[in-house]
Amino acid sequence: MRGLTVVTGAGDVLELNKGLLKNNTGYDLRHLFIGSEGTLGIICEAELSLVRGPGHRRVQLLGVPDMSACLEVLRFYRQRFALSAFEFFSDVALAKVREKTGYPLPLSTPAPFYALVEIETEIEGDEAFLEALLQAFETCCGQGWVTDAVLAENISQAQGLWRYREDISETLAKFRPYKQDLSVRVSRLPEFIRDVERVVARHFSNLEVVWYGHIGDGNLHLNILKPKALEADSFMECCHRAGRDIAEVVSAHGGSVSAEHGIGLLKKDWLPYSRSDSEITLMRGIKAMFDPNNIMNPDKIF
Amino acid sequence: MRGLTVVTGAGDVLELNKGLLKNNTGYDLRHLFIGSEGTLGIICEAELSLVRGPGHRRVQLLGVPDMSACLEVLRFYRQRFALSAFEFFSDVALAKVREKTGYPLPLSTPAPFYALVEIETEIEGDEAFLEALLQAFETCCGQGWVTDAVLAENISQAQGLWRYREDISETLAKFRPYKQDLSVRVSRLPEFIRDVERVVARHFSNLEVVWYGHIGDGNLHLNILKPKALEADSFMECCHRAGRDIAEVVSAHGGSVSAEHGIGLLKKDWLPYSRSDSEITLMRGIKAMFDPNNIMNPDKIF
Repeated sequence: MRGLTVVTGAGDVLELNKGLLKNNTGYDLRHLFIGSEGTLGIICEAELSLVRGPGHRRVQLLGVPDMSACLEVLRFYRQRFALSAFEFFSDVALAKVREKTGYPLPLSTPAPFYALVEIETEIEGDEAFLEALLQAFETCCGQGWVTDAVLAENISQAQGLWRYREDISETLAKFRPYKQDLSVRVSRLPEFIRDVERVVARHFSNLEVVWYGHIGDGNLHLNILKPKALEADSFMECCHRAGRDIAEVVSAHGGSVSAEHGIGLLKKDWLPYSRSDSEITLMRGIKAMFDPNNIMNPDKIF
Repeated sequence: MRGLTVVTGAGDVLELNKGLLKNNTGYDLRHLFIGSEGTLGIICEAELSLVRGPGHRRVQLLGVPDMSACLEVLRFYRQRFALSAFEFFSDVALAKVREKTGYPLPLSTPAPFYALVEIETEIEGDEAFLEALLQAFETCCGQGWVTDAVLAENISQAQGLWRYREDISETLAKFRPYKQDLSVRVSRLPEFIRDVERVVARHFSNLEVVWYGHIGDGNLHLNILKPKALEADSFMECCHRAGRDIAEVVSAHGGSVSAEHGIGLLKKDWLPYSRSDSEITLMRGIKAMFDPNNIMNPDKIF
């Protein structure tokens, strides 16, 4: 984000950073506006840097026995390849997608978790790259981190593998799931998932929890599916109580209660689990400075 | 910058972003501290992301007839290669460096400006890359953007070419130069240099202006060398008057009066040429919030 033109709640027009690449002239106010959910002012113009498009991409789907193994694979692959995606989903997510779409089993050996890896290569069909990938796979199998894998041979197969991941959100919609969009440090993920599952189990018996997300970013989407027997209202009430316990787990692991989607109204209760009282006081002060009459998207965030 | 732990002037300890890759929980206060020159608090811990090291690098020195041509070369090369540096210096800078060091002429055809280009390649000694580089050079010559060039054949030659650029700052030190560290949009550079030279010429007759810098970032280091005949005090007084006119040129081109080095005390007078009154008022308000007793590096920036 090279530059922003904003109108603050006080009516000032600010041209922030003016598209410069280097600028060290006091506080960088640009970043206050990014992710401020419209509470400081209105962004009228934004100037973005373009980056080089990705090179050739190869997509591989790996079956992994548990979350720790999944992270070992991430570490191992990251050291060797230019990863453009490292996504993850559980066997429950896969089963739901297959139920809805009729897609075939992706691997002959089922696994509790799957990692979808997309790797950039400079040269299409590069033999040295394929050799390195095969070696990486063999090492990961030898270590017990991977139980099975498939490598897309062409773009159509690559798109097919992506569908297992990309169809999850739509597939789950009919279950009216309770969703959380959480992040922690990547290294914390195994303990974090274990702790969240523990508190969720405390609130729901016979639950279906579906995990998927962007493991490479430490970002998990938690979905709790509504059991058919439970009324929607009782389910949401129960979820909200569980939500507080989940937020406590997030806090204990130094994580974020909203990785991608912001706080808005729905997550206001969880904000103090990711930001300290001092930070929230400072945020309120900043809000009051940029928007003294509280007219910019009032009551959001805090 | 993934995370900062800071102590504010109010004594609050803030753990900002906690090393997360994705976090959308209100205002991102981290970026206020980056470049705040110690005026908001003390940074106690900083967590940085590591990036992949560069691949093999090839270094080329190009003679260019003027600044517009230099930018055409930048654009042309950027579209075709992964540039890790695109530096620039004037013939005056080269002459001073050669005078001090006795380095040979880098090119057989002298030029008013030189561009030092560093390009990353995946494979060492890649024939296809060298072919593409030769083609690019020929096209640039055909367009009149480049008059001569040399490509380093090995690391030692690459280091030799870099010396022409890296020795400039030390070489100029004995002239006790008046320095400015300016940036504008890359596309503005030719008009910007022309306008700055015009106002400098108004203040100094018989001046030596030395330009060099990071053209790829729009960042120029302007050095005005003290004429031997002029007393140091008179020179600096004259420079300060010229500085105001230069700041006005920066402002007219939407640039930064301090690209890399911050404002501190020396550049306080120039701050309003890069930041508006509203921005400075907001910055003062932020300072007052984080440091209500004005104990953190007082009187700096504004």
